[in-house]
Amino acid sequence: MKVHGKPMRSIWVEPDGAAAGVIDQTRLPHAFTTVRLTTLDEAAHAIRSMLVRGAPLIGATAAYGVWLAMRADASDGALEKALTVLRGTRPTAVNLHWALDEMRRALAPLPASGRVAAALRRAGEICDEDVAINRAIGEHALKLFEAAWEKKGRKGRLNVLTHCNAGWLATVDWGTALAPIYLAHDAGLPVHVWVDETRPRNQGAVLTAWELGQHGVPHTVIADNVGGHLMQHGEVDLCIVGTDRTTAHGDVANKIGTYLKALAAKDNGVPFYVALPSPTIDWTLKDGVREIPIEQREGTELSDVTGRLRSGEIATVRITPDGSPAANYAFDVTPARLVTALVTERGVCPASEEGLLSLFPERRGKAA
Amino acid sequence: MKVHGKPMRSIWVEPDGAAAGVIDQTRLPHAFTTVRLTTLDEAAHAIRSMLVRGAPLIGATAAYGVWLAMRADASDGALEKALTVLRGTRPTAVNLHWALDEMRRALAPLPASGRVAAALRRAGEICDEDVAINRAIGEHALKLFEAAWEKKGRKGRLNVLTHCNAGWLATVDWGTALAPIYLAHDAGLPVHVWVDETRPRNQGAVLTAWELGQHGVPHTVIADNVGGHLMQHGEVDLCIVGTDRTTAHGDVANKIGTYLKALAAKDNGVPFYVALPSPTIDWTLKDGVREIPIEQREGTELSDVTGRLRSGEIATVRITPDGSPAANYAFDVTPARLVTALVTERGVCPASEEGLLSLFPERRGKAA
Repeated sequence: MKVHGKPMRSIWVEPDGAAAGVIDQTRLPHAFTTVRLTTLDEAAHAIRSMLVRGAPLIGATAAYGVWLAMRADASDGALEKALTVLRGTRPTAVNLHWALDEMRRALAPLPASGRVAAALRRAGEICDEDVAINRAIGEHALKLFEAAWEKKGRKGRLNVLTHCNAGWLATVDWGTALAPIYLAHDAGLPVHVWVDETRPRNQGAVLTAWELGQHGVPHTVIADNVGGHLMQHGEVDLCIVGTDRTTAHGDVANKIGTYLKALAAKDNGVPFYVALPSPTIDWTLKDGVREIPIEQREGTELSDVTGRLRSGEIATVRITPDGSPAANYAFDVTPARLVTALVTERGVCPASEEGLLSLFPERRGKAA
Repeated sequence: MKVHGKPMRSIWVEPDGAAAGVIDQTRLPHAFTTVRLTTLDEAAHAIRSMLVRGAPLIGATAAYGVWLAMRADASDGALEKALTVLRGTRPTAVNLHWALDEMRRALAPLPASGRVAAALRRAGEICDEDVAINRAIGEHALKLFEAAWEKKGRKGRLNVLTHCNAGWLATVDWGTALAPIYLAHDAGLPVHVWVDETRPRNQGAVLTAWELGQHGVPHTVIADNVGGHLMQHGEVDLCIVGTDRTTAHGDVANKIGTYLKALAAKDNGVPFYVALPSPTIDWTLKDGVREIPIEQREGTELSDVTGRLRSGEIATVRITPDGSPAANYAFDVTPARLVTALVTERGVCPASEEGLLSLFPERRGKAA
């Protein structure tokens, strides 16, 4: 999407063909800086230190990391070392492992002399595939947006609420939940986005607000506490969020707080949509609340807030009293009964086993 | 309640009898400092600049402000001037006006020579009445806590979730929602409190965590997003919150985000209690969602966060991107259907017109 008026992706090959370029997302929204990744170690560092985040972007960065490694040494040993180093950067990231497996599959059978070009090509394909999936999700969800706009009598603005960052910064382009927002905006639909701050890491206030602002999409940042009140007063026409993991029965694990918004949507008759690339469906799980373990992270992510001082300097302040512990659950599970529909790259379906199987018939008859 | 191990109230007469003492709440939780108020102007400043906050404490401070004014000049003109100055400090605070009316009623009929002593006495009574109301609320709610503890088989800990600060810092002592927590803790019930951070002003993370910590009550600060997840997993035995305004039909206006927690409580079969002194019942209102106007405050309360730098200095950081607007709704309304019971100084009742009238029969037959 656009930054400073120019279209860009979250990862690219530098014009000189000698490096991958990424945005240093740790400095957003206060500074926009891009970083050249020229070696395996720089790519690994970018993932480990969260210059790049978001499952698809981590995968893409790892793929280019393999390419950079091959540029220095395309031997079998170097390939295995690169895969090991990159695998260790974010051990629990599913897309990372998938992308590295893809790179091995593409490169291992080749002679060393063919690996640099093949790695560059496969990394590029991985990026293009991600863009195509997200664009497809966006187009399917756009129909839901258009229906909501018609239902509203095409008056005022179409108010969309989103939680966390399921935008292009987390993917290669478009994003998942934000893809239809960009498509709607570009198509002239007067979309306005309520951006949940998304405590404790503030991905909404920091990343979603920044990317919507850069692309020119009207939006307003709100505390995570506000969505229910807005829905009670007809100020939200639909909600759309991303997901980290969806069960075969349509339960959705997403950033902590998603469940509360889904409850409010249900209570007020507001459609609640979840946008997901099909690889995030975990066909082995049924009951998300019981079966999905929820990561607990450092309490300091809650107690300490980072931002920009009036001087322009970036600083971290502690808000809680010394001696008061903070608990930090990263995700929650929204039961399928609260989800109006799932939006995948193959189309829209009810959040249920039957719904998902209607889009993914090849899974029918396999154990869920 | 206790601070540094010693019992105290949020407002008191200094030992030399020449000033009222208050805690500078703007410096909590990072510094505990008390301030001597010796003149009308100092009392007015304490209210205006939010050294003191919370409806009952504002009323009590205003009452002592009248006393301080009378010490300097007890004439009719000085009394009227004091009332006018104090009335202007927080024009929308209901308790402030009530306390000032009480002071006028007590002082106006008296000769100037009797006003200083009468003002001191009446201000002290206003404080004691507040303490008695809160203690009564606490004792009624304590029975609900004990029932929850029995229901749980007296095992582990009694997990209570609260939102915002309805504690002794907002009143003269005990607080409303926190009163039964202190009583339960002092009685040996193993109560543990999940403290909602309460964005955007962080009253939970800042004030509730501080007062619970000072009194030795086990607690954990959580993001406002977390409560639903905890309830899904049986980690909350009951919720209790305060309220700014309750309708004659039992709808509850309280800090923004309360409604979302009430939805989660309903969805998970967790009791959701609201503690309220009866003066906060607005008998003229029925449907809170439709009838209660919700104050919108400065967006900077959301976009800018204040805390303590590692150096110890207090600083404010901006978290949102330049150019991203922030909306800041201060309250929301929780419909009576989501409230398990109301707890007043007269006892516990269903959140309904019938329930309230059963405790306040003198209102029966009057227009609601």
